[in-house]
Amino acid sequence: MDILHRIGIEKSSPEKVYDAITTLDGLSDWWTEKTVGDTGLGGVIAFRFIPGGFDMKVIELDPGRLVRWEVVDGPPEWIGTTIRWELEQRGDYTIALFKHEGWREPVEFMHHCSTKWAIYLMSLKQLVETGEGAPSPRDVMISDWH
Amino acid sequence: MDILHRIGIEKSSPEKVYDAITTLDGLSDWWTEKTVGDTGLGGVIAFRFIPGGFDMKVIELDPGRLVRWEVVDGPPEWIGTTIRWELEQRGDYTIALFKHEGWREPVEFMHHCSTKWAIYLMSLKQLVETGEGAPSPRDVMISDWH
Repeated sequence: MDILHRIGIEKSSPEKVYDAITTLDGLSDWWTEKTVGDTGLGGVIAFRFIPGGFDMKVIELDPGRLVRWEVVDGPPEWIGTTIRWELEQRGDYTIALFKHEGWREPVEFMHHCSTKWAIYLMSLKQLVETGEGAPSPRDVMISDWH
Repeated sequence: MDILHRIGIEKSSPEKVYDAITTLDGLSDWWTEKTVGDTGLGGVIAFRFIPGGFDMKVIELDPGRLVRWEVVDGPPEWIGTTIRWELEQRGDYTIALFKHEGWREPVEFMHHCSTKWAIYLMSLKQLVETGEGAPSPRDVMISDWH
């Protein structure tokens, strides 16, 4: 079971969006301010939020085109799942196709994460378009689960 | 294949959220201003957007708890899919669990619709919490596909 999303980022380029998802500065400007670790191939990036976080191993990198992470630590539902970013330019928009793949059950937490990913992808779009994202802990709240 | 989402609406009630998804006034205040039809059991509601729209047959209604629609007309990928809303009060939040069930293929359009549903669910949350949603054509754009 997968979470799927698609956004289009205006007046950007696949390279700019790739930077925002493959550098500590970029990631901490749209996902969570508490981002540390090694963003190179085989490295592990630690993303921390108020209640906890995720450790992601970088398992594939194709500059300006593809990024893949594997969740190596975090909530049990996340461990072993993978995240795929595909980037492509179409006219004025850089299209980002996003997949969070390999959920085992459609639990309530998966519903939450799907909506929350959309909010963070909009933060990424806003960051690249305007220079200002809304990363945790300044992120948009969607529910009692933050 | 399903699109899943979860939002929590503060200082509301399942009855208020139920009203917003089962009346023409409610639906046109968060999803699309162009909403017409019959919201009763067995009725068909026509939702129209700039490029087209969806006709939904109301196939299940349990006041304050559950709403289900079946897509009877619209884009080929949507026809035959179903939409399920489950509502429940937990403390200060009305939790809405949303499922758009029965997609046949994980096409790019499914990625788009997943993100766009999140945006509209946030519009629903905003409507019930503040009295003001962001329905089409005043909705938040996410890409070249609107």
